[in-house]
Amino acid sequence: MPCLAHTPKPPYYAVIFTSIRTDGDNGYGKTGDRMVELAEQQNGFLGLESAREDIGITVSYWSDLDAIKNWKANVEHIDAQKNGHKLWYKSFKIRISKVEREYGI
Amino acid sequence: MPCLAHTPKPPYYAVIFTSIRTDGDNGYGKTGDRMVELAEQQNGFLGLESAREDIGITVSYWSDLDAIKNWKANVEHIDAQKNGHKLWYKSFKIRISKVEREYGI
Repeated sequence: MPCLAHTPKPPYYAVIFTSIRTDGDNGYGKTGDRMVELAEQQNGFLGLESAREDIGITVSYWSDLDAIKNWKANVEHIDAQKNGHKLWYKSFKIRISKVEREYGI
Repeated sequence: MPCLAHTPKPPYYAVIFTSIRTDGDNGYGKTGDRMVELAEQQNGFLGLESAREDIGITVSYWSDLDAIKNWKANVEHIDAQKNGHKLWYKSFKIRISKVEREYGI
């Protein structure tokens, strides 16, 4: 049963990661699953939402900028980032944003 | 050829719209296409990225909060929002965030 991230009352941070994949898996699927598992263990992690069609969008939510910095510096994550550059993505963008307001049903 | 949004140097705003659909189309596809076309015509619109699997994620980028407010108040968009509540979404979240930093390849 799919569900949306249950984030706290703003302010908090969103890392908007959008990408276009290269052809072939090249270990992408397995590493992607591991990165989600690992992100969930980080201090300050608040949730994650992900979908891919022509482009992929993963939005991860964090309590503050330090939590994002620590996640970026995680040793296993650094390895994955290197493969992202080398193997998996034709292009990607990472946007770090501060969520000011949230509503929905 | 898919491509990512070409946004300017931050700061600017991102509206992160995540959703879970109800079953059936009920006019969703046609209205979705029209909303993209209409958003692109708004002052302050900077770009849009969208993907759907189990959940849908659409991130639209805007120059400032007034541009987002005007888009929310657009008459055709208000009609679509009503159908979103009534027909198309089991749940959705809208997060308004200020992009502070952007990088990528």
